[in-house]
Amino acid sequence: MLKNIQASIITIGTELLIGQTIDTNSAWIGQELNKIGIWVKRRVAVVDDYNDISTALDEESKHADIILITGGLGPTADDITKPLLCKYFGGKMVVNESVLQHIIQLLQKNNRPLLERNLKQAEVPDVCTVIPNPLGTAPGMWFRKNKKIFISMPGVPYEMKGMMINTILPKLSQQCTLPIITHKTLVTADIAESVLAERIQDFENNLPANIQLAYLPNHSMVRLRLTAIGENKIHVYNELNIQFNTLKKQVHDVMIADEDLSIQEIVGKLLIDKKATVASAESCTGGYIAHLITSIAGSSAYYKGSVISYANEIKQNVLNVTQHSLDTVGAVSEQVVTEMAKGVLQTMHTDYAIATSGVMGPTGGTAEKPVGFVWIAVGNQHKIVSKSFQFRFDRLKNIELTAMHALNLLRAFMVDYAGKH
Amino acid sequence: MLKNIQASIITIGTELLIGQTIDTNSAWIGQELNKIGIWVKRRVAVVDDYNDISTALDEESKHADIILITGGLGPTADDITKPLLCKYFGGKMVVNESVLQHIIQLLQKNNRPLLERNLKQAEVPDVCTVIPNPLGTAPGMWFRKNKKIFISMPGVPYEMKGMMINTILPKLSQQCTLPIITHKTLVTADIAESVLAERIQDFENNLPANIQLAYLPNHSMVRLRLTAIGENKIHVYNELNIQFNTLKKQVHDVMIADEDLSIQEIVGKLLIDKKATVASAESCTGGYIAHLITSIAGSSAYYKGSVISYANEIKQNVLNVTQHSLDTVGAVSEQVVTEMAKGVLQTMHTDYAIATSGVMGPTGGTAEKPVGFVWIAVGNQHKIVSKSFQFRFDRLKNIELTAMHALNLLRAFMVDYAGKH
Repeated sequence: MLKNIQASIITIGTELLIGQTIDTNSAWIGQELNKIGIWVKRRVAVVDDYNDISTALDEESKHADIILITGGLGPTADDITKPLLCKYFGGKMVVNESVLQHIIQLLQKNNRPLLERNLKQAEVPDVCTVIPNPLGTAPGMWFRKNKKIFISMPGVPYEMKGMMINTILPKLSQQCTLPIITHKTLVTADIAESVLAERIQDFENNLPANIQLAYLPNHSMVRLRLTAIGENKIHVYNELNIQFNTLKKQVHDVMIADEDLSIQEIVGKLLIDKKATVASAESCTGGYIAHLITSIAGSSAYYKGSVISYANEIKQNVLNVTQHSLDTVGAVSEQVVTEMAKGVLQTMHTDYAIATSGVMGPTGGTAEKPVGFVWIAVGNQHKIVSKSFQFRFDRLKNIELTAMHALNLLRAFMVDYAGKH
Repeated sequence: MLKNIQASIITIGTELLIGQTIDTNSAWIGQELNKIGIWVKRRVAVVDDYNDISTALDEESKHADIILITGGLGPTADDITKPLLCKYFGGKMVVNESVLQHIIQLLQKNNRPLLERNLKQAEVPDVCTVIPNPLGTAPGMWFRKNKKIFISMPGVPYEMKGMMINTILPKLSQQCTLPIITHKTLVTADIAESVLAERIQDFENNLPANIQLAYLPNHSMVRLRLTAIGENKIHVYNELNIQFNTLKKQVHDVMIADEDLSIQEIVGKLLIDKKATVASAESCTGGYIAHLITSIAGSSAYYKGSVISYANEIKQNVLNVTQHSLDTVGAVSEQVVTEMAKGVLQTMHTDYAIATSGVMGPTGGTAEKPVGFVWIAVGNQHKIVSKSFQFRFDRLKNIELTAMHALNLLRAFMVDYAGKH
């Protein structure tokens, strides 16, 4: 069998290790490499320290064939990566004319002054191939040593992504003989991971050796991912399809998508199918449902807008929630959330509506309505259904969960009442 | 000088390496350890593979004194960590009675069936100390080997956090003699990293050896962080304060906060100071500004609500944007965004308003208004100021940047027109 090409990602930056920055680069790099058949085997984050970076280069080159390095290339003094790489690969620093011209042009375009430290960025080790950085001033670098490939990129996500897409991925595909790796994912809702695992135990035990199953739980949703690896594209795809179809049959009653989609994408597809529109009336989620819906390109086809009614006066004045309901049962109630849904249907003239009201914390809870208690309503002009939940997390997680459950309730409503509006 | 206690974090999970999950645990762990004086030196992510995990344990125990392991403890078959740790530390698996009782109670409380694989979770290596997991079924484990501490936790963020706070951090503080590490951060706006670096070059070069400066750029904002380390708490804090005050003076004109705050926190504090309220009228940001504002606990004191007017009919019907403006200059224009701000001030009766309208992409751009082009307006009933921007990123990043710049414009407006409303 073809040898797997394995990669390791080294991310450099003390801010990653003391927790001031969350590393989103590595996940993206992992996805993109995987698509072309390169498997990320390890990922290491190290502080901005000469010895720590050198040690990481030594170690990772033992574990992997390709070592991708991000970070530590900015114009400021805490960036030590470039001189280190120069020394590590036994080169000397030289000014690269095309990088220099690019930096000058980029700074001029953005009306920024050309500083000594910007000029420094045009210097690169003479033992590397420069990787152009169309979106920034720090060039990328490509080294080879003992048959291993080392690629250094800036840590700024959009600069790194530009380099990967324009230069690095095509070049890796060209230089390496790569196996076929392919994934297929389905999404289930409202079933616990352990119950699901019990159900598909036999299926999992009988999978061929080159196909693996993974569980990716995310609260009310569990994604199941099958990964196949092999040499022959058609064979690998066929094998995976057969297993994936078997899996689909076994979970058909709890499956909400047979591809790797977010709940907002699933809802968006249903709305497009129905040529229908939606609006949200949000109290406790504070616009997060609107954000999830509008994070999807093309959502303007089905999303008209929202009223975020954080204050009760907005619930009354804009959504026509009655004073009586607020006085008798309070803002976090089935009554109010139902009135909010009706109100936004009327204000925005949409086919469907979502409404939320709850206590997200950390304060504001009572014995009767503790932190994490929430009412959600979804529906259309003929019918509104509502449901209460008790979440037990911190503020942001409670907001996220409320939004996901609200979207999932709307999904179920659209499926259950198909054609009834 | 006191020896630094250094930690390494091993995160286990193929989903992290193929990019299906972003690791937010490590950043949080890094922050919390740092607060008690433990320095995270390295962070390694490995796939769910016996050899890879064993190798990581071997290697990280060479680099660090404390090895924290997250992931790989769930109830499903792709989780191999517990038996591996048992073998690695030379123990055998035994049922832990208190863990068993906890699992049974937790499942009963959530009305979930007790499955064979849940019972398995009550088994732990006899060579570890169990770390209780009040929020989940998988227990944590504490091992010692060759004077190193190994701590295994589940990957589910809230379960991991519960264990860290309740058990692990207090126990580490007790068992280790820790140095004092402390940070102070300030936030600047509207100055490029390289210009800032030029300005404070001398300051940086003259810092004492135990104090470090780091740049944390995030587009229009650059945070500057000073980190001091030492043995004597009062001495370390005093030294850091002296340097921090010097730094503050050098950047006073571009500094928007002298602590590590997000722009939404800075705006929230200003609003509380002024006893003022705010609302947003969002088109292209689709609720993201509302979400940022309401992600802050206590925001109900100053935030009343928002109108997300994605469709033009909502701009007209709810925000009173004129047909004439939409017809002549279009939705993405100074005119419309100003009318949106005025409209929401009127609808929500707030002191301040933010409005956005733009083309977030990937499609919908024109020659005149390309993808990333946006108008933002902020103001009060006496004055509205507006500004256009051209961002060059993907949809989500364009939304984020628009929201951050909008909040920063409101901040500047509130400072510039202090007392004038």
